[in-house]
Amino acid sequence: MRASNYHINTLKEAPSEAEVASHQLMTRAGMIRKVAGGIYTYMPMGLKVLRKIENIVRQEMDAAGAIELLMPVVQPAELWMESGRWEQYGPELLRIKDRHGRDFVLQPTSEEVITDIVRNEIHSWRQLPRNFYHIQTKFRDERRPRFGLMRGREFTMKDAYSFDRDEASAQSSYDAMYDAYTRIFQRLGLEFRAVAADTGSIGGSRSHEFQVIADTGEDLIVYNPDTQYAANIELADAPGLIQHRAEATQPLQKTATPNASKCELVAELLGVPLDRTVKSIVLAADDPDAPGQSRIWLLLVRGDHELNEVKVGKLPGLEQGYRLATEDEIKSAFGCPPGYLGPVQTARPVQIVADRTVANMSDFICGANDEGFHLTGVNWGRDLPEPAVADLRNVVAGDPDPQGGRLAIQRGIEVGHIFFLGDKYSKALNATYLDTDGKPAVLQMGCYGIGISRISAAAIEQNHDDKGIVWPRAIAPFEVVVCPMGWSKSETVRNAAETLYEQLRQEGVDVILDDRDARPGVMFADWELIGVPLRVTVGERGLNEGIVELQQRSTGQTEKIPADSALSQVLERLKSLA
Amino acid sequence: MRASNYHINTLKEAPSEAEVASHQLMTRAGMIRKVAGGIYTYMPMGLKVLRKIENIVRQEMDAAGAIELLMPVVQPAELWMESGRWEQYGPELLRIKDRHGRDFVLQPTSEEVITDIVRNEIHSWRQLPRNFYHIQTKFRDERRPRFGLMRGREFTMKDAYSFDRDEASAQSSYDAMYDAYTRIFQRLGLEFRAVAADTGSIGGSRSHEFQVIADTGEDLIVYNPDTQYAANIELADAPGLIQHRAEATQPLQKTATPNASKCELVAELLGVPLDRTVKSIVLAADDPDAPGQSRIWLLLVRGDHELNEVKVGKLPGLEQGYRLATEDEIKSAFGCPPGYLGPVQTARPVQIVADRTVANMSDFICGANDEGFHLTGVNWGRDLPEPAVADLRNVVAGDPDPQGGRLAIQRGIEVGHIFFLGDKYSKALNATYLDTDGKPAVLQMGCYGIGISRISAAAIEQNHDDKGIVWPRAIAPFEVVVCPMGWSKSETVRNAAETLYEQLRQEGVDVILDDRDARPGVMFADWELIGVPLRVTVGERGLNEGIVELQQRSTGQTEKIPADSALSQVLERLKSLA
Repeated sequence: MRASNYHINTLKEAPSEAEVASHQLMTRAGMIRKVAGGIYTYMPMGLKVLRKIENIVRQEMDAAGAIELLMPVVQPAELWMESGRWEQYGPELLRIKDRHGRDFVLQPTSEEVITDIVRNEIHSWRQLPRNFYHIQTKFRDERRPRFGLMRGREFTMKDAYSFDRDEASAQSSYDAMYDAYTRIFQRLGLEFRAVAADTGSIGGSRSHEFQVIADTGEDLIVYNPDTQYAANIELADAPGLIQHRAEATQPLQKTATPNASKCELVAELLGVPLDRTVKSIVLAADDPDAPGQSRIWLLLVRGDHELNEVKVGKLPGLEQGYRLATEDEIKSAFGCPPGYLGPVQTARPVQIVADRTVANMSDFICGANDEGFHLTGVNWGRDLPEPAVADLRNVVAGDPDPQGGRLAIQRGIEVGHIFFLGDKYSKALNATYLDTDGKPAVLQMGCYGIGISRISAAAIEQNHDDKGIVWPRAIAPFEVVVCPMGWSKSETVRNAAETLYEQLRQEGVDVILDDRDARPGVMFADWELIGVPLRVTVGERGLNEGIVELQQRSTGQTEKIPADSALSQVLERLKSLA
Repeated sequence: MRASNYHINTLKEAPSEAEVASHQLMTRAGMIRKVAGGIYTYMPMGLKVLRKIENIVRQEMDAAGAIELLMPVVQPAELWMESGRWEQYGPELLRIKDRHGRDFVLQPTSEEVITDIVRNEIHSWRQLPRNFYHIQTKFRDERRPRFGLMRGREFTMKDAYSFDRDEASAQSSYDAMYDAYTRIFQRLGLEFRAVAADTGSIGGSRSHEFQVIADTGEDLIVYNPDTQYAANIELADAPGLIQHRAEATQPLQKTATPNASKCELVAELLGVPLDRTVKSIVLAADDPDAPGQSRIWLLLVRGDHELNEVKVGKLPGLEQGYRLATEDEIKSAFGCPPGYLGPVQTARPVQIVADRTVANMSDFICGANDEGFHLTGVNWGRDLPEPAVADLRNVVAGDPDPQGGRLAIQRGIEVGHIFFLGDKYSKALNATYLDTDGKPAVLQMGCYGIGISRISAAAIEQNHDDKGIVWPRAIAPFEVVVCPMGWSKSETVRNAAETLYEQLRQEGVDVILDDRDARPGVMFADWELIGVPLRVTVGERGLNEGIVELQQRSTGQTEKIPADSALSQVLERLKSLA
């Protein structure tokens, strides 16, 4: 490609709303342009990146035996009603009406449609297993779209759906996708981690996320540097930190703690470590015994720990949803406003659940259910009944791994997610096949997503510096840029640059010749911002000495190479890049 | 590809709603499955066809210097309001609201978004000309979607948009697209014709449609077999068939024509040729002199001719729209119900326009404005004033071409349309650039569409027989199918089939090996329905004699070829196919 025939339009400034590097840099490099909140045009170079990602995903899906088809963007509401998600899905599901007033959705995901297809297309065990996938535009009506392509409303995803006879076969299909995803992210040239994850609104019994490691990631990954273990913090088991509960040594005492409504303040006031305190979180949920009324829950985690909402949502009784209790509810249950609550002698009965660590604490400190007062020397069994126990907290770095070693935490960006669905959708939509015994059996499903457009943003979050993007070779908009110094002035330079450009093209390299006749500073800044892995600078002075300059974007290092072996050296360097 | 790893699901019956061959055959061959009215899933083989079409289009667009980008499916209403099309576009524009109640559309076309991009991206004459294109999902909320992919609601199109400094340069861009389209349809292997066409709701000053020739086409193409002339019948100039008006020879007479309310009945009753009669069509349109009231128009075409609604819509005074007059309006204007109307002595003044041919008729027959009566021997100038004259009718086959020869008519399916837009959108959206003189000037635009998914259907309408689809090689889901006879029974057959299959794959042929172990009749019927261009049948008896069978789908002819030169013969035959 010649730059003069292409569209290159870099910007000095990113839009003020761009909070993250990928949003800023993709906009500045001219890869995306905003059309509306969370809706972008992929400009030519942005689209090239997207297509390269798509192609790698497609090749590996095909190699894994998945079959590509294409389901529509606009899907009839009937199927979503049949699965129950028409009701369950929140306002992120954009519901629309056609000219006749019939209900449709803009697809955020296609479990319903694929299951409908398969229940009509798959009749016999002979047709199994099958894995269908598509790469399609999706829409999720985010309340507050932001971070550019990281959390857009319209985006591109690859979705695959596997159908199997039984759980063992479905596990094989799942494993094959796990392996394909591993190859995909390796080929994309990204540092990533496959982590056990929660199944969320998609459902199913187990899942793995593929996380691109980046300091700006929204997800926290818990892993053990010494083993294969990695899990999203939502799911990662937090060990009890106290093996055996110590004997009580202190009497129960009520202590004035005026204005100390948080554990940190109480610990400071009383001059004790924060890990002697217990934090009280009050939730409300529907009371199964009294329809229409709420039951009040008191969850306890150690003062230095954080409540894990996903784990809370799995507690028996809270699976159908919960919310923070209102101040009125709190006062009525505890006889006290928030800030001084605790499990000892509540005004009315509440459901108390203690985190594993809290359950083994002794002589601990918690609110006294009396404004301005805390209790010290609190002991289970003596001062209050033994609690129900559960894992309620987030892992923190340094927690011991029960398998040995210590857990570490890093940030990641979720770019892929694979789910073992079982029969959740196939049962709801009655997708069956005739098994070897001639009897109908329900299909076992898996689903497997990759955020194509999000990968482009995640790659930048992981790979950028103060000059711009540092693309991995596999998904760079161009692999090599040839920059002639003084295009319009020197025929020698023009000829040498053209020759190298044509030679690289012949070798199948995705190369761009910057024939815009721009000043070197402008050219260099543009290509550093755009992030092309290799730059070859061709100048008259160098040519007189028989050399051209080769710069590698990732290291910033420039070296002089012989002009007459430039082609082979560039090819070799390209090969060495991830 | 091996059939056992692929999804092949042919049907004996097409759905009853499928009225045209492409809809029936794509469904029966398992290429599409309906999700809702006008909304389909492209099953694996249907998607393969679509991708092959897309690739040819992309290659030729790139070769023509157009630059690919990707605009979103969901577009903000603001831009459509700015261009005025939010109001002008009918209910086919699906208007939606997001969760915050903001207005959006599902794009049926992207003039607004591209013009918005360009007004922000193009600043200087140095950046011109530019041609941007995208291949994207579109939505048109057809009142009555039908004919499968021919008139769907969700479909795939390629849209290109060119931006130029002046009209001459814009014409060059237009011509380059005309040439690219010609190459595209040649490469697709389709019989097609580029025809001058009306610009319709897109607007602009001139346009060409690319029509795939097919008896089932909805469009009528007027062409001259001896010249390059071709135009959509909507636009094609209909010559006046009478060079000079003859002198009046008959007196004006009122004749009873009971129950003869149509020209055909009058001609039969009076024993005269149909071309002696004149047909009266009564329209109503807003009266510019009396706001809120309608003006009545009487249009006259010869009894054997048909009114052309597009031409009528271009008459001064009818450009803003018109409708058929109601029976009350007709009675009030003519003092007579429909069936016996004419231009002589109307009850009230009406706007009379005669077709070119009618304007030169003499001694003609028309309604008498008296129920059950017609006038004969009617003559312009003598019996009624000279009329306003315009081209009002459709060309009929055999009409003389003013450039020599006679006009013919054939049916076509519109699969491409290129428009010379001028400044319609750039002016409305204020898309300007700084010209060489440093002053802002309005961009000249063109837009260029290709119906990617419709091409797949049009190709079938043109190429099918009673056994199924006959794909042109370039867009067939597979180029060659290898059919082994007795896959599970004969190792000789398996080896020979595998070998040929692998050899063809090595040569880059898109080949499928039918290893389903199905009966020959089932296999042959499937592949004839699916329409693969070449079939190689490998059987034990043939192999013993050193031969395999090669069948060409388009001719149905089978020939025995030496097994040991099968590869080269298949390759040669493939080359000979369009």
